[in-house]
Amino acid sequence: MRLREAARAIAAAALGPGTRARLSGGRAPMAKSKFEYVRDFEADDTCLPNCWVVTRLDGRNFHRFAEQHGFSKPNDDRALHLMTKCAQTVMQELEDIVMAYGQSDEYSFVFKKKSNWFKRRASKFMTHVVSQFASSYVFYWKDYFKDQPLLYPPGFDGRVVLYPSNQNLKDYLSWRQADCHVNNLYNTVFWMLVQRSGLTPVQAQDRLKGTLAGDKNEILFSEFNINYNNEPLMYRKGTVLIWQKVNEVTTKRIKLPKESEEKEVEVARTRTKAVPLHCDIIGDQFWEEYPEILADS
Amino acid sequence: MRLREAARAIAAAALGPGTRARLSGGRAPMAKSKFEYVRDFEADDTCLPNCWVVTRLDGRNFHRFAEQHGFSKPNDDRALHLMTKCAQTVMQELEDIVMAYGQSDEYSFVFKKKSNWFKRRASKFMTHVVSQFASSYVFYWKDYFKDQPLLYPPGFDGRVVLYPSNQNLKDYLSWRQADCHVNNLYNTVFWMLVQRSGLTPVQAQDRLKGTLAGDKNEILFSEFNINYNNEPLMYRKGTVLIWQKVNEVTTKRIKLPKESEEKEVEVARTRTKAVPLHCDIIGDQFWEEYPEILADS
Amino acid sequence: MRLREAARAIAAAALGPGTRARLSGGRAPMAKSKFEYVRDFEADDTCLPNCWVVTRLDGRNFHRFAEQHGFSKPNDDRALHLMTKCAQTVMQELEDIVMAYGQSDEYSFVFKKKSNWFKRRASKFMTHVVSQFASSYVFYWKDYFKDQPLLYPPGFDGRVVLYPSNQNLKDYLSWRQADCHVNNLYNTVFWMLVQRSGLTPVQAQDRLKGTLAGDKNEILFSEFNINYNNEPLMYRKGTVLIWQKVNEVTTKRIKLPKESEEKEVEVARTRTKAVPLHCDIIGDQFWEEYPEILADS
Amino acid sequence: MRLREAARAIAAAALGPGTRARLSGGRAPMAKSKFEYVRDFEADDTCLPNCWVVTRLDGRNFHRFAEQHGFSKPNDDRALHLMTKCAQTVMQELEDIVMAYGQSDEYSFVFKKKSNWFKRRASKFMTHVVSQFASSYVFYWKDYFKDQPLLYPPGFDGRVVLYPSNQNLKDYLSWRQADCHVNNLYNTVFWMLVQRSGLTPVQAQDRLKGTLAGDKNEILFSEFNINYNNEPLMYRKGTVLIWQKVNEVTTKRIKLPKESEEKEVEVARTRTKAVPLHCDIIGDQFWEEYPEILADS
Repeated sequence: MRLREAARAIAAAALGPGTRARLSGGRAPMAKSKFEYVRDFEADDTCLPNCWVVTRLDGRNFHRFAEQHGFSKPNDDRALHLMTKCAQTVMQELEDIVMAYGQSDEYSFVFKKKSNWFKRRASKFMTHVVSQFASSYVFYWKDYFKDQPLLYPPGFDGRVVLYPSNQNLKDYLSWRQADCHVNNLYNTVFWMLVQRSGLTPVQAQDRLKGTLAGDKNEILFSEFNINYNNEPLMYRKGTVLIWQKVNEVTTKRIKLPKESEEKEVEVARTRTKAVPLHCDIIGDQFWEEYPEILADS
Repeated sequence: MRLREAARAIAAAALGPGTRARLSGGRAPMAKSKFEYVRDFEADDTCLPNCWVVTRLDGRNFHRFAEQHGFSKPNDDRALHLMTKCAQTVMQELEDIVMAYGQSDEYSFVFKKKSNWFKRRASKFMTHVVSQFASSYVFYWKDYFKDQPLLYPPGFDGRVVLYPSNQNLKDYLSWRQADCHVNNLYNTVFWMLVQRSGLTPVQAQDRLKGTLAGDKNEILFSEFNINYNNEPLMYRKGTVLIWQKVNEVTTKRIKLPKESEEKEVEVARTRTKAVPLHCDIIGDQFWEEYPEILADS
Repeated sequence: MRLREAARAIAAAALGPGTRARLSGGRAPMAKSKFEYVRDFEADDTCLPNCWVVTRLDGRNFHRFAEQHGFSKPNDDRALHLMTKCAQTVMQELEDIVMAYGQSDEYSFVFKKKSNWFKRRASKFMTHVVSQFASSYVFYWKDYFKDQPLLYPPGFDGRVVLYPSNQNLKDYLSWRQADCHVNNLYNTVFWMLVQRSGLTPVQAQDRLKGTLAGDKNEILFSEFNINYNNEPLMYRKGTVLIWQKVNEVTTKRIKLPKESEEKEVEVARTRTKAVPLHCDIIGDQFWEEYPEILADS
Repeated sequence: MRLREAARAIAAAALGPGTRARLSGGRAPMAKSKFEYVRDFEADDTCLPNCWVVTRLDGRNFHRFAEQHGFSKPNDDRALHLMTKCAQTVMQELEDIVMAYGQSDEYSFVFKKKSNWFKRRASKFMTHVVSQFASSYVFYWKDYFKDQPLLYPPGFDGRVVLYPSNQNLKDYLSWRQADCHVNNLYNTVFWMLVQRSGLTPVQAQDRLKGTLAGDKNEILFSEFNINYNNEPLMYRKGTVLIWQKVNEVTTKRIKLPKESEEKEVEVARTRTKAVPLHCDIIGDQFWEEYPEILADS
């Protein structure tokens, strides 16, 4: 891997004599500078200042990916926890992310309004997020899927969206959580009909066509004795990641001044971590409880 | 992972009665549709038609990454081959890439002028490329680095640049190859001075300050008996990936009609693969040899 | 002038036989539809929703224009009033402008946050503003410059800038008013030194080099007996245009039911007009007095 | 009008003591620099290099404008010539325009591929074009409409579109000329039916519904004895403006060395002018005849 610090100093240097002959047929030296005009074709994609910068990523072809890796339906705990582990890695490795929200195969990251990370260039925000997420997905796979091998490296796509006001941002996150709810309720009933009642997917789809949320709750309750509100919060609400101070106790081996041997000592320290919650973020309560998220000091 | 095909049909459905109470405090039902206006904040980033779309990615903090993983200087074959493996994966998994060029910790991918992949949205091009590359980097790591463990998941950044004419595109690629040359010549001398002559990095840097290519060639030859032109092409030219038809011979077990048992049979077939070359792409010869790259039928 | 309403219906129609032969050399009919792909090259320039849209225009080469038309220095009342008349025309002819601010040869127009005029396309905002302003400038010229002829049609340039928050918008307007102040104070002293003290422009410039506002006030007071604070508000503060209800009394000739002849009658009605003010808009007072400007109902 | 050259030098200067009190209520001095952060909200709108930059403008509400000013139907020579006069003014006043094409109430201007006028900012291209055109429209109105007064200042809108290749540019211009043809053929028949056959507009529209070009030619010929191909070229082809060297002969009063009195002398000189043509630009002939247009030296 080249030394980048060296490269800058010599960027304008002419190419050497040996190379010269081969590159240009012996005529004039062919300098790198001749081609550098192509940099002018790079468009500026600076994000408007004073707006929330949201980067959302989605798994590519994750329907197929889920089938090939035997994800349990409608929710696979291993897959959901792996997604959250990747999102935590993104928050810790990148700058200025104030919170994240994930469900299914998607995750949204909120950069603070005043962020000037990489001069607010949209391409930097989105490519750093998706690449860190994608590499983490493979890196941490075995921690969640154990012996089940990862068959191929998955892809993700991403985008950047700007939200000028706090209300816009809250409505964006509400939209994603409402989407989580609508999908999860549907999928919960759908897979009950398939797994327990033995319907084919097409039959299950037909059965649910035109039903409202109330109808689906009713099917779950009357046919499967399931109260949807007792389903796990992670499935119904998705996962919110916020920064929290947590106390960590670790053991260290230390050699104390007056003693001759090392001793194991418990060390407590406070760290700031991206902590997962599975709560409602549509109502006001969440935002009143964590006012620092929108404070944007 | 949810069934996306189901989600679309029910996107507008109101939330159910049980949920309703919790979400909105018992007042009105809180529908997803209320929040969907936030989609209007997504900006259109369609690439201008009839231009070459180039996506370049770079390793994030790869100077540190190289040190932590003991990359050999100035070039590490394992790392370079892994980069190329990832680029091949990107070319095979994504659509419409006609060629790629890589050196050091960067790779450029050229999408064809007429590509309408994801409606030419810039964010799709760059996030699919970097996420596929990043997940592949971790996935294939052990094939190249064997027992040496990957310490953490690496990040990459990416960008999209448009080039209207074939000449602009060729000049872009020439710029990257000239950059490869300038950096590699510098680094080759620099590390000789450090590894063989015992100079400190600062001393080596001072020694090279202000030298031209010819001076560096001279140092290599007179002090280390190295003819730079005999250095490996992969180091001096980087790696070009183009689509080539290759013959593959595989063995299959087949049961022939008139025989009772399976037999092992050799099967030859022609596949199109992303094949690495280490040649000059600044002069005309390469483009004359592979006219189909720019043909853009 | 063609009938636009007709054009749409027949846009896809093939060209006729007589034309056909000439256009394509007798081969195939050459339809307009063949070329319509070029519309795909138009980029979307929609402004981010929920932001104030500010369009500012500036006179092109107005230094030269002012000299050629004998504008009095440092301020020409005719020119300033004409600028304001044009801005009023822009506000009345276009949609969704909540206020405007002008000084010297520039004017800024503020479109309301929720405006969806021409789907918020930036090019529509800026070209409608500058073209309406430019045509009005020529149209109303003689109302302000009387017998002095307009020598040539002037040009203006324009741009669109988005401001997410009310504070950003107020700071933008404050920036323009502070600019007005700084320039006008300088120009007032400069032209006193030239017109009354007989300095050359270069001498006057040298005299003012490095002076602070206090120094300039002092020169005006001690050398020319001028208290800058008594200079006309229009010069020192520029012109703010806001919508105000005004009572208009017009005379109409009406034939009353029981009378045989028409009679002249005074008719009072309330109209909403773009009214000029010359007040401070940097402090809070203005915004407290006219809260409807930022209300954006 | 302020002296811009002065303004720059003092932009950062703090406001003076007298002003200070008024602006900020006696608290802290309020400097212009405090507000200058708002400049960071201006987005970069640089056009991609090496592309043809086309700016097209359209009359705003010109259907109404035409009626109010008694334009003759389907074509008004005065209006068409005025449009062309304005376009010539735009070409002469602005930089880097290589040709223009106009029809009805629209005009397209082609800036050369390599243009770096105002650093290729899209907003500069479009606002300079439309403002110069709009002011010229009012300025030259009386030269074409004589005693008929202009009732109000008209508006125009504009946009910028980039075309990477020569073929794209030619197809764009072909699209506009085909549009001219389609509209003019329709309008010619439509107004014959209304003006000569006494049909109402609705009846004429119904009569033409579903007709092809051949049908329209036939109606013109059989019912009105009009061969459409003999209609004026300006109506059928629109107007192309290209730069041509023209010889101008002017008379000057000169005092010759050996004579005592001034004499009137004819002076011939060559000037480059934007000259109108009414020819086909869809076929190859035009481009072969004027290769310098696309040469873009």
